[in-house]
Amino acid sequence: MKKPSIVILGAGYGGMITATRLTKQLTANEASITLVNKHDYHYQTTWLHEPAAGTLSAERTRMPIKSVLNMNRINFLQDEVVEIKKDDKKVILKNGEVEYDYLVIGLGSEAETFGVPGVFEHAFSKWTVNGAREVKEHIEYVFAKYNNVEEKTDDMLTFIVAGAGFTGIEFIGELSERMPELCSYYDIPRDKVKMYVIEAAPSALPGFDPELVEYAMNLLENRGVEFKINCPIKEVTADGVILASGDEIKAATIVWATGVRGSSIIEKSGFDAMRGRIKVEPNLRAPGHDDIFVIGDCALIINEDINRPYPPTAQIAMQMADVCADNLKSLVTGQGSLKTFKPALKGTVASLGGKEAIGVVGSRKLYGAPASFMKKMIDNRYLFLLGGPGLTLKRGKSPL
Amino acid sequence: MKKPSIVILGAGYGGMITATRLTKQLTANEASITLVNKHDYHYQTTWLHEPAAGTLSAERTRMPIKSVLNMNRINFLQDEVVEIKKDDKKVILKNGEVEYDYLVIGLGSEAETFGVPGVFEHAFSKWTVNGAREVKEHIEYVFAKYNNVEEKTDDMLTFIVAGAGFTGIEFIGELSERMPELCSYYDIPRDKVKMYVIEAAPSALPGFDPELVEYAMNLLENRGVEFKINCPIKEVTADGVILASGDEIKAATIVWATGVRGSSIIEKSGFDAMRGRIKVEPNLRAPGHDDIFVIGDCALIINEDINRPYPPTAQIAMQMADVCADNLKSLVTGQGSLKTFKPALKGTVASLGGKEAIGVVGSRKLYGAPASFMKKMIDNRYLFLLGGPGLTLKRGKSPL
Repeated sequence: MKKPSIVILGAGYGGMITATRLTKQLTANEASITLVNKHDYHYQTTWLHEPAAGTLSAERTRMPIKSVLNMNRINFLQDEVVEIKKDDKKVILKNGEVEYDYLVIGLGSEAETFGVPGVFEHAFSKWTVNGAREVKEHIEYVFAKYNNVEEKTDDMLTFIVAGAGFTGIEFIGELSERMPELCSYYDIPRDKVKMYVIEAAPSALPGFDPELVEYAMNLLENRGVEFKINCPIKEVTADGVILASGDEIKAATIVWATGVRGSSIIEKSGFDAMRGRIKVEPNLRAPGHDDIFVIGDCALIINEDINRPYPPTAQIAMQMADVCADNLKSLVTGQGSLKTFKPALKGTVASLGGKEAIGVVGSRKLYGAPASFMKKMIDNRYLFLLGGPGLTLKRGKSPL
Repeated sequence: MKKPSIVILGAGYGGMITATRLTKQLTANEASITLVNKHDYHYQTTWLHEPAAGTLSAERTRMPIKSVLNMNRINFLQDEVVEIKKDDKKVILKNGEVEYDYLVIGLGSEAETFGVPGVFEHAFSKWTVNGAREVKEHIEYVFAKYNNVEEKTDDMLTFIVAGAGFTGIEFIGELSERMPELCSYYDIPRDKVKMYVIEAAPSALPGFDPELVEYAMNLLENRGVEFKINCPIKEVTADGVILASGDEIKAATIVWATGVRGSSIIEKSGFDAMRGRIKVEPNLRAPGHDDIFVIGDCALIINEDINRPYPPTAQIAMQMADVCADNLKSLVTGQGSLKTFKPALKGTVASLGGKEAIGVVGSRKLYGAPASFMKKMIDNRYLFLLGGPGLTLKRGKSPL
């Protein structure tokens, strides 16, 4: 009898944890495990605001997949997913195809534009290693260029972050923290620089404790960030953004961080989806497809307490991966029953640059250095789950 | 009796050495010394190929003027020279003017385009701290951008250096040495990168020993540099360069290094000049102007041995500064006679990136590590002349 083939699409938080769990929970005779990923590296999406602002090397946010997973047990295909042919139980790749008995979709997310025109053309919207490096180099290039042009316009040194959610706030936290150093290095008077965070919703960091939100906004305003809350963007142009009010803010740098939708592969492959996310069964399978698990940002689960979806976070992706691996083991070995996924939210910390952060851990609100410490511990905990103490020591962040 | 006022224009090699010599050779009662410079820092023009290619921080190439000169003896004006009114014995500055009894012109050089259209619009031609930072950030930005665009064109990763003289060779030396690291960091296949050095003259590094030139070209070719010698550029466009043959080479990055002319202030102020350089008297004064000394790249002196001008180098600028300071002392104190300037060429070393260099020191030809060692010793010697052992220890380059 042929052993079943498990194919995991995507080496993000969900895919990597699923893969590492499966190599430990299943023997080589029980199943073959294939991991498909566009790059030969895994990267930490939740760290990308740092290399994007230039406060951490992009290299620190990624690691070769082979340095983390047991490659004796994994067939690794470096390729791009084009389409999932669920009726044929195969996945079309850019350079080939792969058949599966069980599929794990962990393809992550893409920028959500909410239909605003011009985002992909004129804003930086890719929260990837490639995208983060581009933002960083773009920022440094406008600084370097400024003193070389005769006609200096204010918009050259105006930076707009669209979206005051987690990513937008963490990014502007890093950028505003680095700004004095950037100005000093490139000989730019600090008052020439303008930083805006523009948010359509009535509050920054929606869902966060209002006291923490106020702390974050005060801190960022003291670093020169101007918030425009309740202020939808109508269009992004080559010159800047046009607000719903019709006003224009000119800026050479626009970073788009208004949130994400699931991978476009989901809709392309004919799944029922809301903004690229499949509303999964409690056991994380796609409705009507007992051979397909969906985890991470492509999976939609409703938080019954507030009747709204859980946010797409690394924490939830990793917890889904645990359940997904357990359920795959049950299916492959025919033992045990399928588990139900139930998120255990341990808290959330948003970094604000330097030694500053805000967050809730358990029922405790944290500000400043203790919050920043917790943030780094959370980052390190993921490394520990993924690769044990060795990886944590090698790639972790000093919490002090 | 009012003490005479000495005004030095420009804080380059010539101006800085003149200023530091004068503070030591004249007492405060003998003369007032004013230094005018656009920036509040001095920088080392001969090091700029390194920050331009990104192998050294731009900060390492500059130093605050006040950290080097005895500011109790110097009136420092941070301002830009607009015009020298030699008949009125005053200098018009952007934000004021300054009168002089004796003037030292050390305004340095500007890019020579030889009339090729498009250089200032489409090529990087400023060998200044600002200019070097812009080149570096531009290069890193195209690397960062490459993996984010759908339509990848070869010209994005094509780098053209116009001119195979000293600056062009030293720059491509650094860039080619750094290229493997750049490709690795930005995930670019090395074979996507093209580097050209295009030279109108029949040889690279004209005037250098042919054996050394061959060593340099072989070394650079082994790093992937393609030389086009005897190949004039007809025009620089937004897309690349058009050669005299009509052929076009497309490139996103064009660095202009075909040589320099003297400051445009020279011609604007009505001096007789050849390409912005004043053919000075043997005592370094401008013909017909006994109160004006001209040193460095703005001064033209013929090497009688070959009936051609001495090249505009830091070495000659510094030697001129010594003679200029001595002659000013003679004029101010009324003692001694004016000295004649005679260059004492100690040798020339061109760095080729990493531990590679070529050069002639005395009558010895040097290659590789010994040449690279000498290059760093030459750089350090300048710091020693300017600011003694303290500055050398603080800002020097480790020769090992």
